[in-house]
Amino acid sequence: MPAAIFLSPEDAEHAYYEALRAGDTDALMAVWSEDEEIACIHPSGPRHVGPAAVRTSWQQILANAGLQVTVSQLQVARNPLCAVHSVLEQIQVEARPQARYAFVLATNVYMKEADGWRLVLHHASPAIGHEDTGAQLAQTHRLH
Amino acid sequence: MPAAIFLSPEDAEHAYYEALRAGDTDALMAVWSEDEEIACIHPSGPRHVGPAAVRTSWQQILANAGLQVTVSQLQVARNPLCAVHSVLEQIQVEARPQARYAFVLATNVYMKEADGWRLVLHHASPAIGHEDTGAQLAQTHRLH
Repeated sequence: MPAAIFLSPEDAEHAYYEALRAGDTDALMAVWSEDEEIACIHPSGPRHVGPAAVRTSWQQILANAGLQVTVSQLQVARNPLCAVHSVLEQIQVEARPQARYAFVLATNVYMKEADGWRLVLHHASPAIGHEDTGAQLAQTHRLH
Repeated sequence: MPAAIFLSPEDAEHAYYEALRAGDTDALMAVWSEDEEIACIHPSGPRHVGPAAVRTSWQQILANAGLQVTVSQLQVARNPLCAVHSVLEQIQVEARPQARYAFVLATNVYMKEADGWRLVLHHASPAIGHEDTGAQLAQTHRLH
């Protein structure tokens, strides 16, 4: 399979979250740079450095299923060779008896390489103070 | 006072942590880009966007004193216009009766602007699993 080519940071980020939803580690790693300096921090987890360690960390997370994740509140700082995306991730952590969500603040840094834009850093941490609106909505529905 | 000029990401990061130790908000903000897209996330805190909000957040943290912070485990991904620094911060949170430390994983992203390198993003989150070696050392000393 030829490596994917991303012509913009937005393309790369779209592919990244699609891969997470699909639970497809190969597609996910195709978004990452192959540079040994890449770093990935999962919420409340240690730092993983380099493609091999980053792949292993995602294989464990995606072992059973894809992540039901939606992204909002995109904030971007960029120049011609780099894009810094800050987003709020809403991840479904339970489906039954009612949907429950975890909220995560994530920083994704993309750099322009010879073959297109690639992810070089993902730093995620719990987002404190975000309402679990999904659960609240479900709760409201159950009460009526 | 003329704005500081940082000729490298390392210069900017050095000034950043010096300003934190000195509790000098003006010096700290001189390291940040003046771009409205800058973003700052303190450990377990919300996201602050733009120079005004970032300044206010630091003024609150530095209201009483500078941060006794030391930085290690620097990991760098960079290209000619951007440098992504991932570091472990050790912050002294108590001095007496014995030194106690909090450990924080921080991502600092610097971009090259017309007048030098500037910080555009700081994302910090608690570093789980890092030993509080300072306290342990003090404890050991007290036992002997």
